[in-house]
Amino acid sequence: MDMQKRRKEVVSKLKGLGEEITADVHAGKAPKMKVPQRGLNNVVFDKTENLLRLGDKKSSRNFLNLAHSRKFMQTMIIAGKAKELVERDKTASIRELYYQLKHTIANTKENTFEDQSESDPLIVDLETSLEVLREELHLKADDKGTIIGNIVIEDSGDFIDCNKLGRSGLAIPSIVEHYKFKDVKAEYVLVIETAAMFDRLVEEKYHTKNNCIMISTKGQAARGCRRLVNRIHKEKKLPIIVFTDGDPWGYYIYSVVKAGSMALAHESLRLGTPEARYVGMTMTDIDTYGLEKVTEKLKDLDKKRINELLMYPWFQKKEWREQLKLMTDKGVRIEQQALASKSLEFVAEEYLPEKINSGNLLP
Amino acid sequence: MDMQKRRKEVVSKLKGLGEEITADVHAGKAPKMKVPQRGLNNVVFDKTENLLRLGDKKSSRNFLNLAHSRKFMQTMIIAGKAKELVERDKTASIRELYYQLKHTIANTKENTFEDQSESDPLIVDLETSLEVLREELHLKADDKGTIIGNIVIEDSGDFIDCNKLGRSGLAIPSIVEHYKFKDVKAEYVLVIETAAMFDRLVEEKYHTKNNCIMISTKGQAARGCRRLVNRIHKEKKLPIIVFTDGDPWGYYIYSVVKAGSMALAHESLRLGTPEARYVGMTMTDIDTYGLEKVTEKLKDLDKKRINELLMYPWFQKKEWREQLKLMTDKGVRIEQQALASKSLEFVAEEYLPEKINSGNLLP
Repeated sequence: MDMQKRRKEVVSKLKGLGEEITADVHAGKAPKMKVPQRGLNNVVFDKTENLLRLGDKKSSRNFLNLAHSRKFMQTMIIAGKAKELVERDKTASIRELYYQLKHTIANTKENTFEDQSESDPLIVDLETSLEVLREELHLKADDKGTIIGNIVIEDSGDFIDCNKLGRSGLAIPSIVEHYKFKDVKAEYVLVIETAAMFDRLVEEKYHTKNNCIMISTKGQAARGCRRLVNRIHKEKKLPIIVFTDGDPWGYYIYSVVKAGSMALAHESLRLGTPEARYVGMTMTDIDTYGLEKVTEKLKDLDKKRINELLMYPWFQKKEWREQLKLMTDKGVRIEQQALASKSLEFVAEEYLPEKINSGNLLP
Repeated sequence: MDMQKRRKEVVSKLKGLGEEITADVHAGKAPKMKVPQRGLNNVVFDKTENLLRLGDKKSSRNFLNLAHSRKFMQTMIIAGKAKELVERDKTASIRELYYQLKHTIANTKENTFEDQSESDPLIVDLETSLEVLREELHLKADDKGTIIGNIVIEDSGDFIDCNKLGRSGLAIPSIVEHYKFKDVKAEYVLVIETAAMFDRLVEEKYHTKNNCIMISTKGQAARGCRRLVNRIHKEKKLPIIVFTDGDPWGYYIYSVVKAGSMALAHESLRLGTPEARYVGMTMTDIDTYGLEKVTEKLKDLDKKRINELLMYPWFQKKEWREQLKLMTDKGVRIEQQALASKSLEFVAEEYLPEKINSGNLLP
């Protein structure tokens, strides 16, 4: 969608919120706002969309309720500052926002905020109640992740050919709303959990030999990274293939890229990519490629996590239940980098091309 | 120095090690190797170089000593694999190296390695005894950090203009030995602790307005990042200016960029940059810029860390003792992002230019 148009929409949503409140005041009514509940009891797995979503439960925040009035005031000044940011086309980290708003209210001893833990959840309240992305409020969390491959990105007037960045790659910022995808010749996107595996594949020139884009999430994918995957998939129709360690933590990283996360369930539509597929490491790989010697024993924490995954509605597909059951039965986990036991080149020259070309992927 | 020449040197060092050992064997002598001790009691602060260095203490590792022979075997196969990597011009993560070498020795039940904790320290032994960087052995740790600004880097045949990377910047890889610095028009390098402050300065176009290179370390600087700072300074004679949080952790990040670290004391000459200077946040800034309201109370852990810094020989300069004393007296710490309390633009338009142009820097 057109960025300028969306910016105007966001400003008018913020303005609308303020106008409702002032209308209440002028009409002699107690100002209040509705905020969707974000607890786990209001997170649902939408089986049609294959995404985690927020349910319909809402709370009311009332200015004249003593228990609510401080939060009400805080929400309002955050909304005001966000409106200013969007209008001025400036972004701020959520920490900067806190510092910008922290002050003692005139003629009182009351501080607007004592701690960032007071402002962070109210930002999410605004996101959910106005149905805007945090990034669209021009607020950002930390960035993480790297992209390389056959795509030209326009970023603030620069045309960046991500195939001409040596072995380094482009650092993915926390906000990618301003990216425009120009020349995209790649055939798919490979999303990789560990920086070391990304480096290996870059060194093997996997992305040029297989004409793909590679994205390193460096552990759990940050918001900027998830949004980038989501946008490339939606706007350029590229398949998304995810490659993580073969353990419950890696499988969960995949599920977050695919279905969204519980904490950000209100943004799944824009952060999740339900069409993503999984290439490895699977438990089946251990037998297929003779990797028993380079597995590691499950720790208690791993076992606990496996049982948690088995409870999640979005891990109920039979293929995933099979993998998790196999993991429990074998009592082992396996890392991406264990493939180096075959040879350094094995992952790039055999493992990935074989599995991807034959469509041997998990849903 | 010429990369191909250095590569040959490294190979001949590795070969030399093997030749010494085999010569011992052929002469009927017990093979042994000398390894510099790396404990804190062998780390010294070199006041002439202003760098942390390893002292002269060495240990002997003897093949015929039962307590040494397993480590001896392990060191040899690591050296052999490193020689192969350098000769083939391949790199590997230290995790991949472990997986590549892990196997059961023929006709025995003995595994070469049980765990990566066995191979990691032996890599450092090789680095120190041969006086080569880990990166020169083509081994790498994780990468971290971003660079942007007026410098053209040649990376594997691509010419990357770091001034044409929008708001994203180039991801700094774990190995930067292959970088060639082409067109460098910037006047200095600003090294920044937090990703959020880096983003702020990118948004304010600080690097173009002030013609500098900006590097984000994202916390403690990774090896690739330190080596990059070291090389740009040495090869392009650019001043290095460091900008961290005003707390003992930020001050230590500065000291590592400048003087090296205790764990990597053997590599300080190639990872440290003693000419680096410090711009902020200083404790004096709090009064100068009226930032009392946005400081945070010191926690016990901060106080403990301050006392540790005060003991380090490389924190004995009076300017640093003063800052640490002020921190203790005020009982507060201050973040880079607290400058946002003045205005989002303040750090880029007033704070940094004023301090840097007037040379108001700490040694």
